[in-house]
Amino acid sequence: MFNMQKPYLTTRSLQPENQETPIHFLEKDIIPNPLFYRRNHFPYPSLSSYWLPITGSVARPQLFSMEEILRFPSKTIKVVLECAGNKRARFEPKIYGEQWENGAISQGYWKGVPLSYLLTLSGIKKDAKEIVFEGFDAGKRNDPDKEYSFVRSLPIEIALHPDTIIAYEYNHKPIPFIHGYPMRLIVPHWYAMASVKWLKQISVIDDLFHGPFQSIDYVYYPNKNDNKRSFPVTTINVNSTIQKPLNMEIIQIGKHKIKGIAWTGKGYITNVKISTDNGKTWSDTQLERRDHKGYSWFNWSYKWTIQSKGEYTILTKATDSYHRTQPSAAYWNRKGYGYNAIDQVKVKVE
Amino acid sequence: MFNMQKPYLTTRSLQPENQETPIHFLEKDIIPNPLFYRRNHFPYPSLSSYWLPITGSVARPQLFSMEEILRFPSKTIKVVLECAGNKRARFEPKIYGEQWENGAISQGYWKGVPLSYLLTLSGIKKDAKEIVFEGFDAGKRNDPDKEYSFVRSLPIEIALHPDTIIAYEYNHKPIPFIHGYPMRLIVPHWYAMASVKWLKQISVIDDLFHGPFQSIDYVYYPNKNDNKRSFPVTTINVNSTIQKPLNMEIIQIGKHKIKGIAWTGKGYITNVKISTDNGKTWSDTQLERRDHKGYSWFNWSYKWTIQSKGEYTILTKATDSYHRTQPSAAYWNRKGYGYNAIDQVKVKVE
Repeated sequence: MFNMQKPYLTTRSLQPENQETPIHFLEKDIIPNPLFYRRNHFPYPSLSSYWLPITGSVARPQLFSMEEILRFPSKTIKVVLECAGNKRARFEPKIYGEQWENGAISQGYWKGVPLSYLLTLSGIKKDAKEIVFEGFDAGKRNDPDKEYSFVRSLPIEIALHPDTIIAYEYNHKPIPFIHGYPMRLIVPHWYAMASVKWLKQISVIDDLFHGPFQSIDYVYYPNKNDNKRSFPVTTINVNSTIQKPLNMEIIQIGKHKIKGIAWTGKGYITNVKISTDNGKTWSDTQLERRDHKGYSWFNWSYKWTIQSKGEYTILTKATDSYHRTQPSAAYWNRKGYGYNAIDQVKVKVE
Repeated sequence: MFNMQKPYLTTRSLQPENQETPIHFLEKDIIPNPLFYRRNHFPYPSLSSYWLPITGSVARPQLFSMEEILRFPSKTIKVVLECAGNKRARFEPKIYGEQWENGAISQGYWKGVPLSYLLTLSGIKKDAKEIVFEGFDAGKRNDPDKEYSFVRSLPIEIALHPDTIIAYEYNHKPIPFIHGYPMRLIVPHWYAMASVKWLKQISVIDDLFHGPFQSIDYVYYPNKNDNKRSFPVTTINVNSTIQKPLNMEIIQIGKHKIKGIAWTGKGYITNVKISTDNGKTWSDTQLERRDHKGYSWFNWSYKWTIQSKGEYTILTKATDSYHRTQPSAAYWNRKGYGYNAIDQVKVKVE
């Protein structure tokens, strides 16, 4: 038997490279690099330095070499990274921009030095308000028409969280170039735009940072034609995705295992409910993990016995330990971030 | 600059392997094997024989060796192969089954011996009505619940057409295994289910063949709940696809080149019209080829100058030399074949 067939990423664009994962093929808990979704704002950078400076409102400005960073105390954490635009294609009314389906999400082991360790060595001054992270990736934006690097900030308390790390390994190997080699900020529980790739420098500032990747993009705009009531994209919404069966799949009478993932950016998943009759009745799925630690997704499954032919609509609804639950309709916003409506697939039983 | 990024096929399923091409990245006229869409009915076969028998209603049954076939007169033809389910995801009401977008289409050079040459050597008897082609791929169907090979027939006049060939090369190399090595029937102008892969045997029959891949699948069923007025899927409908810009893309004021492909299973493409105002006005696109021979698609392009911001709906409509033109709405059929409605993308100009 010839068995070379394998799934590929689904290509959305190449300049910059944006490719998502065919989520229904992810059998493993740790996603190997070739299947990790790729979301870039600019062409890939060329790296000119392997030094990491920390400057600004600090008592002792630092210039860390890669060697130093590798010698510092490290930790390894399993983290879900999800693009803020994941599932954008599902908003109604439709949203312009990259039409991500449900595969702009991945997870694996990230190893690095806690950012708090580096900041402690630097000595943050009293008036400091935010930490700014600049990547080596840069390019032109149209609003206004000039060159920018990819730069974002974090509030000090998030930057000092013990699990906010400067990572240099993914799945026990150096971070692949396309995912941020040699160093990438990892901010667990936040949408992945916060986890700045190809880290070039860190600065501590006394006021609030307003780069376009945080004042124009990655902002929820609830109105179509004005910017009223807008607020920034930060932590991941509670969410779930059905991996099997596929939407519009034709299946047979008998026993089926419905499976999928659920995740959240606040606390942990407490349950995932499923309906096989379009919401009339709900059952509990089986969560394959019950521990409350870490930042990885929860796999869930449900044994479904189908007794009669027809069309079925399957829904799933995850709830987290903060009692957040997936809404029936997603929170519509003009740039299409944070989609987390109840997940849905339709199947036909023949 | 790091420049390894490349498009992948979009994975629909792996058992059997069904993957489509991200059509907007096809810059080349001849599609290299890694980007050729893959559509299988069964797992890949294991090949036990490199002999090709022609039996049944013939004067001189034949058993051709691969060596003989390679020595016979050959021809090389450039052919569009399109899956009959291409664009199925666009039908309304939605259709169950593989959700092909617009990438189950490809083209390249196929080289082989005309089938008519082999049939002439065999001597078709007078009462013969159809030629039956069996592939090495086989598996279980549920309707009824038993094992089948992939087998289809052709009317004699199609089988004898000088461009119906038994191919053994794709793009000047042996046919890649996944696309039908060592021999594949190529039937220009027909949807690609007719181009049987991994050819195992050919038989000439005196009646009409009724295998499930021609009496159950690959049949247009216009009604949802019964099989009335059904008829077989044969030649390709006139069609066009916009490759650039992408649907829901955000673009800027200024000059743009809209581009795409158009193709037909009858005659040749005579023009492709485009509308950038959702059908109110239409213009001619520029066809990059004006010859009337062969079976390849026509590339077309249109220079579009955008002067004001807003949302635009772009439509394209191809017409062939048989005066067939793309309809506003596709011909809905229960299994979702032959979608060829006017192509459409929406863009937002900022």
